[in-house]
Amino acid sequence: MVGAGTDGTKTPGRGGPAIVLVRPQLAVNVGMAARAMANFGLSDLRLVAPKNGWPRTDEHRDAAEAAAAGALHILNGARLFHTVEAAVADLTAVYATTARERGQGKPVLAPDAAMAAWAGPIAAGEARGILFGPERTGLDNDEVAVADAVVTFPVDGAYGSLNLAQAVLLVGYEWRKHAGGTALPFGAVERSPPATRDAVLSFFDYLEGELEAAGFFRPDGKQPVMRRNLRNIFHRIGMSEQDVRTLRGAMVRLVEGPRRRGGRDAD
Amino acid sequence: MVGAGTDGTKTPGRGGPAIVLVRPQLAVNVGMAARAMANFGLSDLRLVAPKNGWPRTDEHRDAAEAAAAGALHILNGARLFHTVEAAVADLTAVYATTARERGQGKPVLAPDAAMAAWAGPIAAGEARGILFGPERTGLDNDEVAVADAVVTFPVDGAYGSLNLAQAVLLVGYEWRKHAGGTALPFGAVERSPPATRDAVLSFFDYLEGELEAAGFFRPDGKQPVMRRNLRNIFHRIGMSEQDVRTLRGAMVRLVEGPRRRGGRDAD
Repeated sequence: MVGAGTDGTKTPGRGGPAIVLVRPQLAVNVGMAARAMANFGLSDLRLVAPKNGWPRTDEHRDAAEAAAAGALHILNGARLFHTVEAAVADLTAVYATTARERGQGKPVLAPDAAMAAWAGPIAAGEARGILFGPERTGLDNDEVAVADAVVTFPVDGAYGSLNLAQAVLLVGYEWRKHAGGTALPFGAVERSPPATRDAVLSFFDYLEGELEAAGFFRPDGKQPVMRRNLRNIFHRIGMSEQDVRTLRGAMVRLVEGPRRRGGRDAD
Repeated sequence: MVGAGTDGTKTPGRGGPAIVLVRPQLAVNVGMAARAMANFGLSDLRLVAPKNGWPRTDEHRDAAEAAAAGALHILNGARLFHTVEAAVADLTAVYATTARERGQGKPVLAPDAAMAAWAGPIAAGEARGILFGPERTGLDNDEVAVADAVVTFPVDGAYGSLNLAQAVLLVGYEWRKHAGGTALPFGAVERSPPATRDAVLSFFDYLEGELEAAGFFRPDGKQPVMRRNLRNIFHRIGMSEQDVRTLRGAMVRLVEGPRRRGGRDAD
């Protein structure tokens, strides 16, 4: 088996850490793990001795593929191993996820610290991987012993029950954050250009004139402070040109009442 | 409906943001969302118009409960609403999760930035909540319009397909990180006390004496640098008292060969 970091077909660090599922029991969890990986740019999925073989029936394969939800490239690219040792043979560092303490005196890391530590070496071309144990029991102690450190999750101590694919998801999420993939798939849209101060003040003049005429600014001495408060409320909108037009149009309608048929539209 | 932040029965901020599932379709996803919440200390689950009612059959309830995996207190405490507006009526701030841009000019936040912004206000007693749309379609634009900002996830643009419970999990995870719940459920075990330098040097003396006798340090002039290199390798272990005993015992056996029956054990 040629190592992911040395076979020359991969860009260093692009596939992220290998996700090594040890003795997974449920096809749906393998599929969900593949889906979680795809979301965060991971691609190296390894299965160690899946329960009763892989895939064991067509139905079994179908369940995994349905859960993978389009991440078939990862599911179909998964490599099978008989032992944890064989699955990690080409890796230069291995972490083991566990939900409880194992008395092995290994460093214990949260997923963010773990992925922060690995981002550099993986980008530099090292192949590293994380072990995830079977759904019910987790990794056994000999499997944990293969690892350099333990990764666990900052869950509520009173509950603390992540499933396999949830654990993979959190590792993938932190990998992508630390590997520089923090770009969101979209950002705030550029709205209409910001309104000029002239347009804003013109809107205020119109509004305040109408409010004055309607007897809003009472008692008399309060007009300046009421006007400032009102202006500050509108300033907090950070109005665009379109916002000013929309608000002015709305105020015009409030002042003038229903448009007559055939009348000119307010802008 | 009494607001979560004002009913006097909750410690401010303890329940975290409300998770508002809008028109969820699958019972299993509601259960998995409850499980995700429980892991990260969230407790306020709200369901808006679940497809065909909630729960619609015993089987439906069973599916949700199985997926919740022990987070029944959250599932059973879920509150039902007919509309998004009713579900968020008592909240002081609302974010909407979306996977794509909606052209509404709202700020777009990653889950870490969103939860960083909310940790303080929620700890101070404000009730805030996050909308998650139906599995297939996501929130409709009118539902997004209810929110102050959009939350989206830093997923791989080429794939980008988180399911409902995965999205809830990432929000819960970031909530707990920013609400100060970063404590891991366990830490590295205290190993045997660190070895005294005297014990370490005594081990080195023994080892180097045996290596000298075995002709390891060749050529002659290289002995000092070879010895330093070897010591540095062992120093990197950060040996405990027990480590020194174990290593010394192992070396003794290498030197002396198999123990004779009835002989004294090496320590």
